Amino acid sequence: MWILRVNMNDRIYRLSEVPEAYKNLGGRGTTSTIVYDEVPPLCHPLGPNNKLVFAPGIVTGTAASTSARVSAGAKSWLTGGIKESNAGSSWASYLANMRIKALIVEGQPKEKGKYWMAHITWDDGAGKPKVSFLPADPYTGKDLYEVFPKVYEQFGARAAIAGCGVAGEYGYGNSGIAYNDLGKRPSRYSGRGGLGTVMASKGLKFIVLESKGAPGVAIANKEVFDRGAKKLTEALREHAITKPKGGLNTYGTAVLINIMNEAGGLPTRNFSSGRFEGAAKIAGEAIFEGVKNRLGKEVYNHACSPGCIIQCSNTWYKPDGTEHTSCVEYESDWALGANCGIDSLDDVAEMVRLCNAYGLDTIEAGTTLAVAMEAGVIPFGDGKKAIGLVQEMGKGTPLGRILGGGTEFTGRAFGVTRVPTVKRQSMPAYEPRAVKGIGITYATSTMGADHTAGYTIGPEILGVGGKVDPLSPEGKAALSRGFQATTAFIDSTGHCLFIAFAILDIPSGFEGMMEECNGVLGTNWASEDAAKIGGEILRKERAFNEAAGIGKAEDRVPEFMKFEPLPPHNQVYDVPDKVLDSVYGEL
Amino acid sequence: MWILRVNMNDRIYRLSEVPEAYKNLGGRGTTSTIVYDEVPPLCHPLGPNNKLVFAPGIVTGTAASTSARVSAGAKSWLTGGIKESNAGSSWASYLANMRIKALIVEGQPKEKGKYWMAHITWDDGAGKPKVSFLPADPYTGKDLYEVFPKVYEQFGARAAIAGCGVAGEYGYGNSGIAYNDLGKRPSRYSGRGGLGTVMASKGLKFIVLESKGAPGVAIANKEVFDRGAKKLTEALREHAITKPKGGLNTYGTAVLINIMNEAGGLPTRNFSSGRFEGAAKIAGEAIFEGVKNRLGKEVYNHACSPGCIIQCSNTWYKPDGTEHTSCVEYESDWALGANCGIDSLDDVAEMVRLCNAYGLDTIEAGTTLAVAMEAGVIPFGDGKKAIGLVQEMGKGTPLGRILGGGTEFTGRAFGVTRVPTVKRQSMPAYEPRAVKGIGITYATSTMGADHTAGYTIGPEILGVGGKVDPLSPEGKAALSRGFQATTAFIDSTGHCLFIAFAILDIPSGFEGMMEECNGVLGTNWASEDAAKIGGEILRKERAFNEAAGIGKAEDRVPEFMKFEPLPPHNQVYDVPDKVLDSVYGEL
Repeated sequence: MWILRVNMNDRIYRLSEVPEAYKNLGGRGTTSTIVYDEVPPLCHPLGPNNKLVFAPGIVTGTAASTSARVSAGAKSWLTGGIKESNAGSSWASYLANMRIKALIVEGQPKEKGKYWMAHITWDDGAGKPKVSFLPADPYTGKDLYEVFPKVYEQFGARAAIAGCGVAGEYGYGNSGIAYNDLGKRPSRYSGRGGLGTVMASKGLKFIVLESKGAPGVAIANKEVFDRGAKKLTEALREHAITKPKGGLNTYGTAVLINIMNEAGGLPTRNFSSGRFEGAAKIAGEAIFEGVKNRLGKEVYNHACSPGCIIQCSNTWYKPDGTEHTSCVEYESDWALGANCGIDSLDDVAEMVRLCNAYGLDTIEAGTTLAVAMEAGVIPFGDGKKAIGLVQEMGKGTPLGRILGGGTEFTGRAFGVTRVPTVKRQSMPAYEPRAVKGIGITYATSTMGADHTAGYTIGPEILGVGGKVDPLSPEGKAALSRGFQATTAFIDSTGHCLFIAFAILDIPSGFEGMMEECNGVLGTNWASEDAAKIGGEILRKERAFNEAAGIGKAEDRVPEFMKFEPLPPHNQVYDVPDKVLDSVYGEL
Repeated sequence: MWILRVNMNDRIYRLSEVPEAYKNLGGRGTTSTIVYDEVPPLCHPLGPNNKLVFAPGIVTGTAASTSARVSAGAKSWLTGGIKESNAGSSWASYLANMRIKALIVEGQPKEKGKYWMAHITWDDGAGKPKVSFLPADPYTGKDLYEVFPKVYEQFGARAAIAGCGVAGEYGYGNSGIAYNDLGKRPSRYSGRGGLGTVMASKGLKFIVLESKGAPGVAIANKEVFDRGAKKLTEALREHAITKPKGGLNTYGTAVLINIMNEAGGLPTRNFSSGRFEGAAKIAGEAIFEGVKNRLGKEVYNHACSPGCIIQCSNTWYKPDGTEHTSCVEYESDWALGANCGIDSLDDVAEMVRLCNAYGLDTIEAGTTLAVAMEAGVIPFGDGKKAIGLVQEMGKGTPLGRILGGGTEFTGRAFGVTRVPTVKRQSMPAYEPRAVKGIGITYATSTMGADHTAGYTIGPEILGVGGKVDPLSPEGKAALSRGFQATTAFIDSTGHCLFIAFAILDIPSGFEGMMEECNGVLGTNWASEDAAKIGGEILRKERAFNEAAGIGKAEDRVPEFMKFEPLPPHNQVYDVPDKVLDSVYGEL
């Protein structure tokens, strides 16, 4: 395996062996360790001393189900703390197949506004990856849907692409890194935390991979690996949420709209209610039915990346049956729908498409629009005007720059006090006042408000991995802590977090995940090691954040949630500070 | 003395006796203690739980020279930490004359966008102040130069006015509280830290004072007071900087332009050089000569507030001899001039006038324009376009909202990395890389970057209170700590900080200041108590900030100053972190 350093000061690269201490790391473990080890916590996120790190998971590139994930990490432009944001894409598998443990982008060109592409291929003769640099000028300032086909034309259909959109070029706090999906769309995202702008600040527009000839992932013990992969695959095929034609494959992640609305925890109109009267119109069921109506047949969802069993990615179609966008995720659907009071799937789909085109995180975009609505920029529920605001972001107008700055930034621009952020990152689609445990994750995660950092929604709402009362704060610190630690491990394996639905309910599935890792690495990890290893990662992330000035005072939900009761349960956020502090205090 | 609480939830007020613990406080000591005691550190600065506190100094309202200062304090909208910002105005004396130790504005109306005036007068019958509330609607959304005369018309020529401009109404991070000067202009400012927006968030547009019939300040020991006042007056009349027709009275604070330029510490074109080729054209000497040319006579400066001996406020005139604006302070002149590469006094004066009209801090405005210039919004040196940008702020356009957000906000909007801020507040007119001690004050002050928090320029540049090498970091932590503590005391006395020039060089002047306080309060403070009492205030401010999440990591100059050498000395900022940490560590 290689550590590949790309230095954008003068566009050179360097390959080195993987240090012993990094050998058993993958994904988030790799990116967070390298950021912790190499990035000065007080550096400017867009300056020459920040580093952007990409790392495939431990089992990424193997035959392990649902494991084509790549982590991107850096000091976040949005939060100012450490950031890891992972995505599923063939790009991840290619990186792994070329045995690149970590791709570290360093430095930045002196000349501003000039962009490059790094083209990474396998050099059969030398038996290692090689990098060439090409000008990206023809691709800058443009819609990624327009640009991706041209990049494929330039590099061939077998390429995989990662890149930033205009959001990154403009310097927005809201800017992700886009990766190709299996349909070559720029639709898979390391969306959160402004990593697109970190990439753009390095003068790097695209990283194009071609792994032809690469040796693939080395597996230390194939028997152990195969046994593990089989167990995990069986668990995924068995669980009601993850199995073929199960919840996710049929309705996509947006299956959660009705569930969260029923629970009174679907943040509506900028977190002023937990229930949206238009929920059914934008729910996963409505997407399924809508597609059936427009295409005249039932369509189950597809995989975002190679080797996925769950296959949760939907496609939305226009009334004439042509593709509108893929994919309308729950978070996007909620952020741009319910949270803006918008109940039209066509409007939501158009905004999702625009976010993908510009390189914007849909969650941050939707919560930003809702804050702008709260400020009176446009009315709640006006889908057409909301589309117009997303287009402003694409144009880089002054208003677009305000909105592109993200939710907290927009709140500051307009003096809004109801701003649902933690550590400057906006909350996703679960209301802390109605689901107390997820609020603990939002408040304490090293990532800023992030549902994927410790998805207590499993036991609190879905009855996965146990069943607890969402409205009670009791026991939730331990619950969140356990989920956060285990998640940090899963994010290191290269598996999609959605395997958690299956492996938390089916112990052999969890064993399978550990055995896959043992097979690849030659380790002897048991199931209980997952949280330990994840805990180590969290401690490093936390230490980075504290050195960057992000400590206990930032482990809090916004003040308004402490005194504004949320309908329909009319509860405030009542988890005491000392409980929040115990999450990392007792890690 | 009274604590007067004005509650804007439902516009009621309450008078209470001054608690024993507050009896010897004044000015900054009063505001910071009340903010520390009563404001939740994690509250939203624009929410109902922040409080805006006004307090006259200990000797304000008496015959003590140069003492008509009022402190305004709150949790800052700009920095997120504690804020005290003081100004000289007859408004301060009126407050003191009505024996109001602290005016605390609490709560906020439910209805947004509706503004009120609080009219505070002396009720002869009851022997205490009274408050009435009147609608401010006719005065909102307008230029303060247009509005102040109307408020005077409504309340009479003997009124004193404090209020916020449109910058506060729009919710800007850059927004001050304006007070009348002796010419009834809205030109004296608690400028820094976004307090105008805190005031506006309470639905409070103006606080109008009339102290007719009020008893005036109670003096415990008139003999001691008189003796002290005499000593201080003598010192002020003697020192070359503060005496009549001395440095400040002749050239105003802008006398520093040439001095700082010569020292290579005048930040130029967004802190990219320490020397400005156009410095002489905007220097205090040029203002004096320019006024002489346009009026045909020499004009010495005037007092901003009653009882000032120093009289440093200038007036700039148009070519036809009519008044353009008052006053062009050094900081404003530098920020809107040298730091933007602008060398036209007419352009600078117009921007100063506009900032006063809109309720903007001139320092923050100028550093913001320079960052926008760095981003390419307009070119450096283009005064007319710079005026246009200030006008955008006055209109509340999206671009105006970006700029109104302040320097760091504008840097984020455009992805600029050379952003000269500490704790989100912009640096004033002294370059840390050329004057190491002032950088320590900027970095460590509880206020964010603030020259008035610990003006080491005295010994480092002016040879006041000693003489040390500005380029050396040696001994500067102790120097800054001492200045910060003594300053916190002076800010509590009600004296203008400019008395420091005299009292640091003339020990009897310092004694005089202490004796004035002893005379008013009946205390027995000696000169060495000043830093002790100031240190207590700093400790409270620091504790508030730490609870608000602003700790050591925020006690740093921006990263670029650590690796970009500054011409002409070509030095970076080389004060080690542990030295910065020792400022409060050893307080």
